Amino acid sequence: MSLPKIEPDRIQRRLDTLWRIGRTDSGGVTRLAYSDEETEAIEYVCNELDDNFEIQRDQVGNVFATREPDADRSLFLGSHLDSVYNGGRLDGALGVVLALEAIQAAYDAGEPPAPPTLAIFRAEESSRFGQWAVGSRGALGQLTVEDLSATDESNVPLWQAMQTQGLKPKNFSESTIDTNRIAGFLETHIEQGRVLDEADEHLGIVSSIRGPVRHRVTVEGDYDHSGATPMTLRRDAIAGSAKMVTAIEDIATAAAEDGDVVATVGEFAPAESAINKVCGEVTFSIDIRSNDNPYRDHVEDQILERIEAIADDRDLETTTTLVDRSPPVELDEGMRELLADVVDSLGLSSRTIPSGGGHDAMNFQHAGIPTGMVFVPSVDGISHSPKEETATEAIREVAAVFTEAILTGPPERN
Amino acid sequence: MSLPKIEPDRIQRRLDTLWRIGRTDSGGVTRLAYSDEETEAIEYVCNELDDNFEIQRDQVGNVFATREPDADRSLFLGSHLDSVYNGGRLDGALGVVLALEAIQAAYDAGEPPAPPTLAIFRAEESSRFGQWAVGSRGALGQLTVEDLSATDESNVPLWQAMQTQGLKPKNFSESTIDTNRIAGFLETHIEQGRVLDEADEHLGIVSSIRGPVRHRVTVEGDYDHSGATPMTLRRDAIAGSAKMVTAIEDIATAAAEDGDVVATVGEFAPAESAINKVCGEVTFSIDIRSNDNPYRDHVEDQILERIEAIADDRDLETTTTLVDRSPPVELDEGMRELLADVVDSLGLSSRTIPSGGGHDAMNFQHAGIPTGMVFVPSVDGISHSPKEETATEAIREVAAVFTEAILTGPPERN
Repeated sequence: MSLPKIEPDRIQRRLDTLWRIGRTDSGGVTRLAYSDEETEAIEYVCNELDDNFEIQRDQVGNVFATREPDADRSLFLGSHLDSVYNGGRLDGALGVVLALEAIQAAYDAGEPPAPPTLAIFRAEESSRFGQWAVGSRGALGQLTVEDLSATDESNVPLWQAMQTQGLKPKNFSESTIDTNRIAGFLETHIEQGRVLDEADEHLGIVSSIRGPVRHRVTVEGDYDHSGATPMTLRRDAIAGSAKMVTAIEDIATAAAEDGDVVATVGEFAPAESAINKVCGEVTFSIDIRSNDNPYRDHVEDQILERIEAIADDRDLETTTTLVDRSPPVELDEGMRELLADVVDSLGLSSRTIPSGGGHDAMNFQHAGIPTGMVFVPSVDGISHSPKEETATEAIREVAAVFTEAILTGPPERN
Repeated sequence: MSLPKIEPDRIQRRLDTLWRIGRTDSGGVTRLAYSDEETEAIEYVCNELDDNFEIQRDQVGNVFATREPDADRSLFLGSHLDSVYNGGRLDGALGVVLALEAIQAAYDAGEPPAPPTLAIFRAEESSRFGQWAVGSRGALGQLTVEDLSATDESNVPLWQAMQTQGLKPKNFSESTIDTNRIAGFLETHIEQGRVLDEADEHLGIVSSIRGPVRHRVTVEGDYDHSGATPMTLRRDAIAGSAKMVTAIEDIATAAAEDGDVVATVGEFAPAESAINKVCGEVTFSIDIRSNDNPYRDHVEDQILERIEAIADDRDLETTTTLVDRSPPVELDEGMRELLADVVDSLGLSSRTIPSGGGHDAMNFQHAGIPTGMVFVPSVDGISHSPKEETATEAIREVAAVFTEAILTGPPERN
């Protein structure tokens, strides 16, 4: 079977046009959540739709566009158009442009059994308001009043930014879309990691989205003169914390051989440090993620126990504060099979990988909607950076896979 | 032999009076270098001298007071009266008050063979100007024009602060005192560490003052998504640096069993850290000190080699910058013997220890003047803090030791 009629030039033109909206001097894009640039990008994509499409805009600014608004079952496809500060041109935008391409190519080729709906979610990135996936959560009735009072660095609250973009959200505890008629959701996104790039694979079928458990650990010892305090009389918070960081890495590296897990110390902050002082206090973060909750808890226990053992051994005090504990999301098996079958039928190769970061897709699966996700490789694993890049071939292949998936249709919901 | 006639009440009264000059709400003192408080403290001590003393003030504000200004040989005793911000009441002040007490007690008891001179040095602490031991270096002609243009946090240069205190330094490359007639120098100071406190000794005879070699190491890896990057594909600067910190501690702890050395990582600064990012850049400091230069160099080599090996192993880049390389100072053997003999003759016990921090005494030994130093224990090793404390008994004993040392007299200079 040959690839369906994808138009790479059209894809490239749309990506290039979106790139120009909020483009930065260094070649990245700044299209923040609920900014004029985000609105302009959404309007540009809407203008690319022919008159056959009916466009619905919801109270938080998402766009849903379909040629068959009255269909009982619709396959939703899409992603977001906002970005972080000086982010990459593909993050989000690629998912929207490929969904649109696949929908157009599918209608060119035949009759989709579950008519597709293009979904453009607002405000997926948390960089402006500290609130993540506002659009997709809003579409599914998952937002709270508290979420909407989050402010940006100019103290503009989220609800006010929405109003500035002409939106008047009222009842955000209700879905803005009829989830019963959504037969499934498909998203493609550039991988925010380097697994596919290192493996030299064009496509990754996402098995699950890892859930994080996060702690901050404060380690207290004694401040001492660095020249006057013998090694054996120190209660050195930096040295003790360093030992803990090494233990965390060792435990996670060993555990990753037997199951899905990563653990990261991303923050390491000594209090009142100086070149000539033994440091008495350090706070560091731990971020443990897995798509297997019991396994994650097991690794978490191992890590916290080891931290306590190191602290005891060195006569250090520790205070551990839980920051976040979110469940992992297993993506729908039927949707994963659909994607795998299509990949096979097109003679392509793919790899099954967990997603480390969260995506709009996560919220759809959480809401019980069968959800599938495809990653394209990020060259060198670069994410949230102007240097973000992927291969043209990978873009073409995902467009083909989504087109075939639309033409095959999602499995019946149980 | 019984202790000489020390007057503990007089010592306590003088320490309490000095404590009131610049006393802070938390019970510490702030008497910064070349501040009005430092001047007031110096004037108070001068007023405690009877008319038999001739007082000489030099161009950088030091005070030298002796009853026998024409003696061929004089034993100098003293310390400083300035403090760090909210420092302890004993740091420096104890050395001045005990020197004065010993001089007065010695004249009460007999005829000193080398008449004593009380030395009060200005500006020993570097906290205001970043310049250390300005007074004793100035007395010995060791200051440069560059040193005097150092500024405090209000951009006041050191030379201007001197002028504000009525001083007009002119030729600071010459000694302000005739070093040929200084038979020796004795200083007592509260230990800036916990060796004596842990060993339960009242007195420490300082063998040497450790010299530091200092580096800053920048470790570069890759920034990555903490959830999306497998353990095996990371170039994690925090984890790599943590491994280096542990190695530094291990090497120094092992080396300290075979020689005099301490090594400290007092600063550990990740660039752009976040709980959900693998960190791509960390800068940390290394401070290695020893009283044995070749041994220090040997430990330094071991540490820098191990850092490179860890970096290679993890595909991290390192940049190492030398910050300081100062030689250690061995204190005069004759003066150490004098102190040890006096301690023995008084039936006291002491311990020989290296000094980790620098003191005015270091500059005298550097200048070729036979120098001895005695530490009193710091309770819990606390230094540069309002909580700094020592036992009354230790104060009495050092005063007695210095009195006897004055009465015995320093050995002839070679």
